[in-house]
Amino acid sequence: MISFRNDYSEIAPPRILERLLECAREQNDGYGLDKYSAAAADSIRLLLGADADIHFIPGGTQTNLLAISACLRPFEAVIACDTGHINVHETGAIEGTGHKVITVHNVSGKITPEGIRKAVETHTDEHMVKPRMVYISNATELGTIYTRRELDPIRKVCDELGLLLFMDGARLGSALCSIYNDIDLSYLAKICDLFYIGGTKNGALFGEALVILNPALKADFRYMIKNRGAMLAKGFVTGIQFDELFKDKGHLFFTLAQYENMMALKIDRALTKKNYKFYAPYAYTNQLFPIVTAEKLAELQQNFAFNVEKALPDGTFAIRFVTSFATTPEMVNALIEAL
Amino acid sequence: MISFRNDYSEIAPPRILERLLECAREQNDGYGLDKYSAAAADSIRLLLGADADIHFIPGGTQTNLLAISACLRPFEAVIACDTGHINVHETGAIEGTGHKVITVHNVSGKITPEGIRKAVETHTDEHMVKPRMVYISNATELGTIYTRRELDPIRKVCDELGLLLFMDGARLGSALCSIYNDIDLSYLAKICDLFYIGGTKNGALFGEALVILNPALKADFRYMIKNRGAMLAKGFVTGIQFDELFKDKGHLFFTLAQYENMMALKIDRALTKKNYKFYAPYAYTNQLFPIVTAEKLAELQQNFAFNVEKALPDGTFAIRFVTSFATTPEMVNALIEAL
Amino acid sequence: MISFRNDYSEIAPPRILERLLECAREQNDGYGLDKYSAAAADSIRLLLGADADIHFIPGGTQTNLLAISACLRPFEAVIACDTGHINVHETGAIEGTGHKVITVHNVSGKITPEGIRKAVETHTDEHMVKPRMVYISNATELGTIYTRRELDPIRKVCDELGLLLFMDGARLGSALCSIYNDIDLSYLAKICDLFYIGGTKNGALFGEALVILNPALKADFRYMIKNRGAMLAKGFVTGIQFDELFKDKGHLFFTLAQYENMMALKIDRALTKKNYKFYAPYAYTNQLFPIVTAEKLAELQQNFAFNVEKALPDGTFAIRFVTSFATTPEMVNALIEAL
Amino acid sequence: MISFRNDYSEIAPPRILERLLECAREQNDGYGLDKYSAAAADSIRLLLGADADIHFIPGGTQTNLLAISACLRPFEAVIACDTGHINVHETGAIEGTGHKVITVHNVSGKITPEGIRKAVETHTDEHMVKPRMVYISNATELGTIYTRRELDPIRKVCDELGLLLFMDGARLGSALCSIYNDIDLSYLAKICDLFYIGGTKNGALFGEALVILNPALKADFRYMIKNRGAMLAKGFVTGIQFDELFKDKGHLFFTLAQYENMMALKIDRALTKKNYKFYAPYAYTNQLFPIVTAEKLAELQQNFAFNVEKALPDGTFAIRFVTSFATTPEMVNALIEAL
Repeated sequence: MISFRNDYSEIAPPRILERLLECAREQNDGYGLDKYSAAAADSIRLLLGADADIHFIPGGTQTNLLAISACLRPFEAVIACDTGHINVHETGAIEGTGHKVITVHNVSGKITPEGIRKAVETHTDEHMVKPRMVYISNATELGTIYTRRELDPIRKVCDELGLLLFMDGARLGSALCSIYNDIDLSYLAKICDLFYIGGTKNGALFGEALVILNPALKADFRYMIKNRGAMLAKGFVTGIQFDELFKDKGHLFFTLAQYENMMALKIDRALTKKNYKFYAPYAYTNQLFPIVTAEKLAELQQNFAFNVEKALPDGTFAIRFVTSFATTPEMVNALIEAL
Repeated sequence: MISFRNDYSEIAPPRILERLLECAREQNDGYGLDKYSAAAADSIRLLLGADADIHFIPGGTQTNLLAISACLRPFEAVIACDTGHINVHETGAIEGTGHKVITVHNVSGKITPEGIRKAVETHTDEHMVKPRMVYISNATELGTIYTRRELDPIRKVCDELGLLLFMDGARLGSALCSIYNDIDLSYLAKICDLFYIGGTKNGALFGEALVILNPALKADFRYMIKNRGAMLAKGFVTGIQFDELFKDKGHLFFTLAQYENMMALKIDRALTKKNYKFYAPYAYTNQLFPIVTAEKLAELQQNFAFNVEKALPDGTFAIRFVTSFATTPEMVNALIEAL
Repeated sequence: MISFRNDYSEIAPPRILERLLECAREQNDGYGLDKYSAAAADSIRLLLGADADIHFIPGGTQTNLLAISACLRPFEAVIACDTGHINVHETGAIEGTGHKVITVHNVSGKITPEGIRKAVETHTDEHMVKPRMVYISNATELGTIYTRRELDPIRKVCDELGLLLFMDGARLGSALCSIYNDIDLSYLAKICDLFYIGGTKNGALFGEALVILNPALKADFRYMIKNRGAMLAKGFVTGIQFDELFKDKGHLFFTLAQYENMMALKIDRALTKKNYKFYAPYAYTNQLFPIVTAEKLAELQQNFAFNVEKALPDGTFAIRFVTSFATTPEMVNALIEAL
Repeated sequence: MISFRNDYSEIAPPRILERLLECAREQNDGYGLDKYSAAAADSIRLLLGADADIHFIPGGTQTNLLAISACLRPFEAVIACDTGHINVHETGAIEGTGHKVITVHNVSGKITPEGIRKAVETHTDEHMVKPRMVYISNATELGTIYTRRELDPIRKVCDELGLLLFMDGARLGSALCSIYNDIDLSYLAKICDLFYIGGTKNGALFGEALVILNPALKADFRYMIKNRGAMLAKGFVTGIQFDELFKDKGHLFFTLAQYENMMALKIDRALTKKNYKFYAPYAYTNQLFPIVTAEKLAELQQNFAFNVEKALPDGTFAIRFVTSFATTPEMVNALIEAL
């Protein structure tokens, strides 16, 4: 059984584990105050070109709930599109911190300025929650990405309506390495109030780098992390990984993302050649959503593991293939063969 | 600078990292549903001799907040002693889930049945929180341990008063390897409703094994984990570590704990020989709390890192030395020299 | 300016205030443990024909958040229709207690068994919240009511799917006095796990009677009330009002509701005669939702106060008229004249 | 049975109920936006001599939880003395909003600047909650009051340490009418960030006036009120009562408080004459805490209702007598007779 289920099925590139092994018995300061975390943050700041606060958090849902609950007062809400991870796949973690997720319809997994504006306009007074933040994911849950032409207007509407902008970058590596991509970390540093760079889905054992740009949101954030149980004692384990991923201008981080995108592209070409239709437009990231018949589905499931996203009304199925740093050309070829 | 600051200053014994390296590119199921987590849980269950549910959680504060908030209704409270980790050192994480921590005075870092009874008796009606759980740590925050003679009456008073018993085992390895210890995991399985076995402070990169014994507390616990942001995508990273720690009847886990206790014992002997007084009685775990003069403190701080627990009224200081799997005899000798 | 804005614009029928005046200086036990609260609860139980626990709560949002948060574990969610009060008009009060509101499309302000089933079926595992309760309002936010033919299947699907059923009865008086109504309190006692009978919108100065039927939900509820700040010191002020409303088989309660429905019916007849269209079907409760042109809207607003529910795409407006115990025939005639 | 149990055993002075009766069927704007609430706020502002935001909240616990949770970020805590109402008698309502109550030892029911300083000094870093607010009650839970000589230094230490000052004025009327009192509302407006003036315990059916002085705390407070379920639909019922209590410079409010203090003073004189000892020093408010023998206790309980505060080690009992607007000279005489 070969798995295309997700990009977190394998531990990490050996290089990262070897790096940990080298430091196995070295003494470091705890709770993220070590030299590796500092160096990793410096490397990221270099790419940002901005004076950001950077915190390393074990997981994505945790990063989302931390970022959102740190910014909102009890009656304030976050706007997300209906397919947004915080709305669907976090078991109410955001609501668990006391905040409503206001949903707007997605367009290919993305939120639009019009959607944001409408959400604000329909929340008119103190009998309703007060929208205060916009949550977007890049790459999105449908594998699509945001471009400058989409993000500039989103930032503009946020400014106009007094909203904070937060980007969930669980798959930011893959997004930034898409051939459709026209943004970089320094651009995100300009338009986001805060965002995170996902490690878990791009080669780390675990860990996400939360980047706080807006100075008003920086104070006392380490208290927040501890209060939510997200401060690892051995923070240097995360620090070392991000140091390895981001030293040399993010060399390893981007190499891994490019590789997984390339593997996905191969699958995409095969699918297109064979005239498969897609549930979501392919955006050259590491996720693909082809539509298959029931027979093909059953056939594929004999040798491959992947998620079935949705049973479609016409009896076909939208499925998802995800590639990772550990996806080999052989696995891809086997899949293409089977398609 | 040699650090005796804590038992989480070093990553892990190479053996654990090598094990991760072996599996670096192997595909596994995510979110803790992998074979390694299953095997690790089986190994622990073998030691428990009980049909427990076992969940691997990234950190200790997180495990505490999960265990406590999963068991209590909104108006229910947990009783802890004033030195308890949840009361002092978790930045209000328990209160953050909505629950009051009722404190009772500690006796050498421990709670007593009388303390528990008094806490319940002074909470008489619906104008006060309802005590519903007792929280104890073993080893305690003062390095002491609970014995059967203390735990049996605590369980008895819990039964009598309708209280759940939860043990924070962040340093359970060290406690169980103390020469004063007279309990084992199978005993804990009989008296606790739930408890956890700490990995972070005993050789893991991170991770704690939460053991749920009380059948009424088992249902839907994975929802709780996800809701609090504590479910790692690559759960197998934790699973592999606990598999390594607990296979062969917990061989590695107990070996590491015995070793760190032995290193601490050496320091204890030197301190005793030199007539140091202690802030908390030494219980043959990996924590020591000698009292030093201001001069000695300054002198020690030049070459050693450690925590100053408390400035005492007479001008002396209670300090803390902690040993770990990575503490070498050379480090210990250097410290003994300096004392 | 005559107001048809809502049914809580006037204090109370003089009879209720006179009753309070009679007891002004009488000594009573506090916190809802007085004889009047007990008598009122007895009167309501008589109508229920069931051994319910009854608690008097100051307001509706508070009752909703209490009822819902008392029943759900942290990861559990409540299903409501998109127009439901808890979803739209409570400033995130339910999320404020940590729980997601899952929305399903309304049919004339009502939830359907199919909607419930779909909500459960799309929440498949621990990565999503777990639906555990269904919230319905009767009368609904659109003035419509649930009949036996709708409620029986809802109860059935709740039983099948392991869901609790909670009815928000802020306007239950008006619903039960609709000529379309075919249920009574004893029926609700059979199908609901808990529900509330609204006082505020039917003649009380404030106050709602929360009725708990399901024995598993009864324990320690007074702790919940206090924990949420909903326990009034002078609980007998609520008790006396509900005693007055519900003695003699709810004589005053139902008389007031019938009266306000009758006033609404007069307006309905006039609207129908004049061929007004309606935004929501009139169900013989005290709320009407006619559609008016922009000109008519402006004209009406000169002499009448009422809510504009929605600007419709064709340039017309859905408005809302609500009658109350204090609406006089003269007010109604003035409105009819102006329509 | 004559009750000296508390000051909320009787509904209200007839004058307040008559005022409600006069307006029984009058149409008003809902949710606290009515003319009476506005007039009452104006009357209070006149006494404050400050541009305060004033909100009327149904109950005391609710006001406390609102005020505190509106001011604190998730990891911030409130300092109170161990006898403080929020610590003991609110069923964890403050923790229910996510915040720890840090307790310091009381001196006659009061907090001291030293206690505050120590609480801040022992909370040194992000592993502990961050103290951000000081909670005091006046009159205290022991019937004592704060004077200028105590409050000035408290404000000073708050300024120095960056703490907000919040006063729970559930019995502020009685405190301000004590012959020991040397402060007034205009003084409180200068030293408090926010405080509340209790109505429930001084003649209102229910209701507390929350006064927000600190401009940074004013924004969007009505959202907070609604989010916590504390916004009554018929807010004018509270407004009318506070209008009646505070018009003419608070004439009725202070008259009622003076009266109840006077009744308490009579009891105090009798107790002193008969050489009763006191559990808490009498401060000329409406609460007294004499110590009685077991025999006297049993004897008194035959004809009088009152709280037993504490069983003392020597076999005697501290009991509490509270007077109210409805306490008559006859009741007082009967009690004195029995003492």
